[in-house]
Amino acid sequence: MEIQYYHDLNPFPLEGGGCLPGVTIAYHTYGTLSPAADNVIWVCHALTANSDVAQWWPHTVEEGKFLDPGRYFVICANILGSHYGTTGPLSVNPLTGSPWYATFPEVTVRDMVRCHKLLADHLGIRRVKLLIGSSIGGFQCLEFGVIYPGFARNIALIATAVQAQPWAIALNESQRMAIELDPTFGDDDPVAGARGMAVARSIALLSYRGQQAYDKTQADEERGKKLSGYRVASYQRYQGEKLCRRFNAYSYHRLTRAIDSHDIARGRGSVAAVLAGIESRCLVVCISSDILFPVSAHQVMRRHIPRHEYVVIDSDFAHDGFLIEHEKLNNIILKFLENE
Amino acid sequence: MEIQYYHDLNPFPLEGGGCLPGVTIAYHTYGTLSPAADNVIWVCHALTANSDVAQWWPHTVEEGKFLDPGRYFVICANILGSHYGTTGPLSVNPLTGSPWYATFPEVTVRDMVRCHKLLADHLGIRRVKLLIGSSIGGFQCLEFGVIYPGFARNIALIATAVQAQPWAIALNESQRMAIELDPTFGDDDPVAGARGMAVARSIALLSYRGQQAYDKTQADEERGKKLSGYRVASYQRYQGEKLCRRFNAYSYHRLTRAIDSHDIARGRGSVAAVLAGIESRCLVVCISSDILFPVSAHQVMRRHIPRHEYVVIDSDFAHDGFLIEHEKLNNIILKFLENE
Repeated sequence: MEIQYYHDLNPFPLEGGGCLPGVTIAYHTYGTLSPAADNVIWVCHALTANSDVAQWWPHTVEEGKFLDPGRYFVICANILGSHYGTTGPLSVNPLTGSPWYATFPEVTVRDMVRCHKLLADHLGIRRVKLLIGSSIGGFQCLEFGVIYPGFARNIALIATAVQAQPWAIALNESQRMAIELDPTFGDDDPVAGARGMAVARSIALLSYRGQQAYDKTQADEERGKKLSGYRVASYQRYQGEKLCRRFNAYSYHRLTRAIDSHDIARGRGSVAAVLAGIESRCLVVCISSDILFPVSAHQVMRRHIPRHEYVVIDSDFAHDGFLIEHEKLNNIILKFLENE
Repeated sequence: MEIQYYHDLNPFPLEGGGCLPGVTIAYHTYGTLSPAADNVIWVCHALTANSDVAQWWPHTVEEGKFLDPGRYFVICANILGSHYGTTGPLSVNPLTGSPWYATFPEVTVRDMVRCHKLLADHLGIRRVKLLIGSSIGGFQCLEFGVIYPGFARNIALIATAVQAQPWAIALNESQRMAIELDPTFGDDDPVAGARGMAVARSIALLSYRGQQAYDKTQADEERGKKLSGYRVASYQRYQGEKLCRRFNAYSYHRLTRAIDSHDIARGRGSVAAVLAGIESRCLVVCISSDILFPVSAHQVMRRHIPRHEYVVIDSDFAHDGFLIEHEKLNNIILKFLENE
């Protein structure tokens, strides 16, 4: 399926103040909506992904898998502030006729979710069978569950957290420091800050995979015969360059700020009380070796979400485990859906 | 005690090729050498520290502590390539009459150790009661134990590793990418690369303290009332700026390369065989939550060093635990020395 767009021309107020003069939302769908409209699975994507789930989440949009397009109507929309079609720093600001670039306002996870709810309303989707997201996608799922309690019958929260913890903010701040160090950051140019973003990506990778995953995938066989030129050093630089070819530094900067401000309790009372108000049936999945959103970060969901199932995937692949352990994850999610 | 210097005018060959036209070694001593010269404790310092142990390792050079200057003759020398008096990028290259800056050659941990052995020989110290080091200091202790088997009667290896693992190299590469992004890096200027080094420091901190330590020390009380300006973000920037006021980016760059190449087995056969050849009695101490040199990295020392004691310090402070848990560490080291 090709990318589709929904243009909402109404002013879109932002949580941080001000408003966008309308929003465009890019999305993909797979499969067919059932006559009863009861087979919708809504996927929330993570930081640098896009609306094409079949592309960034391999082994999912396939027959027999949890996003089986023969069975479900799967939808995924690009998040506000991103680079892949939804309104973001590279969009043209209609008030100036030029791209926003550095002037694009701060957005929050709540803004992203309210933005996607406009699309759901436009498509006539009032209720989904499953709302699913990993990492920052999980942030959105939690906010969906809190802001629109009737929207999702089931929610799958994978390798995520109810609020950004200090270490995660420190990680993001380091990445932004790298981006801001790039002398081109601030220029009215789509590639501004790209070299800084390459460094940021290299930093981020450290949190996606821990020691065990790096040991497994990046060890040098000739380690003991050289003094430099280690495989993992090339890997860090290569991954940095790779992101620069497909993402924008202003988007990256804004999205990491949105991560930092994620807190389902902000302005709402205690985390416990907010989680206790989630009506959806939830699946909480964490990866045993995750250092970004560790097992401990999932305990609070386990403790306070009224109706939930909780699974730890035993894996050395840390946060990236949600992509790599696709078979385990598929079995867990299929079972969760069957048990309803 | 004031800083002291030893100048060795002989050419100093480097493991990576080439040689330095002589070396200067900066060092501190505390206490008095006993007539039998049997009370020497030699301290190897970590990445950005200096020869003044009493300054960077609080609660150690004190009465009743393991570096008690009333009992021991404590010595610490600044490492080769560093910024604090020993030959490094800010030293004048006698062949050009100008500081080395970016032209300072690559050095290794073995070079650092051979350099310090020159100082020991100069001072007539043929054998020490205890050789002790944490982190990169531990790297040096291991190399001392392998290259000069008769030098240390006892060795304390704290929060360290027998070789730099891929994750640690990835961390260092990210830091060097940040330094190299600074447009001033490469200039003949003592502050060249400083802004890049600030970012590098922010990255390094992520590895010194994990989630638990950040949760304990950097949580925002007003977290739920704001969308930005989190305490931990200021902390990262402040620590970056702080390092810039006291360290040099060329030194930082070279020393992280020396970390990467650390491998006690390089050119010597298997890690197991090399460790089996260590004659000193060893104390292996690790911190339960260390993500830089995790508990698992210490298992290989435990398995293969013939005479050793092994202790895990239960602490949330990760790698920084070796500085913060000074009481626990002091008790462990005193006991190790008493049990000899």
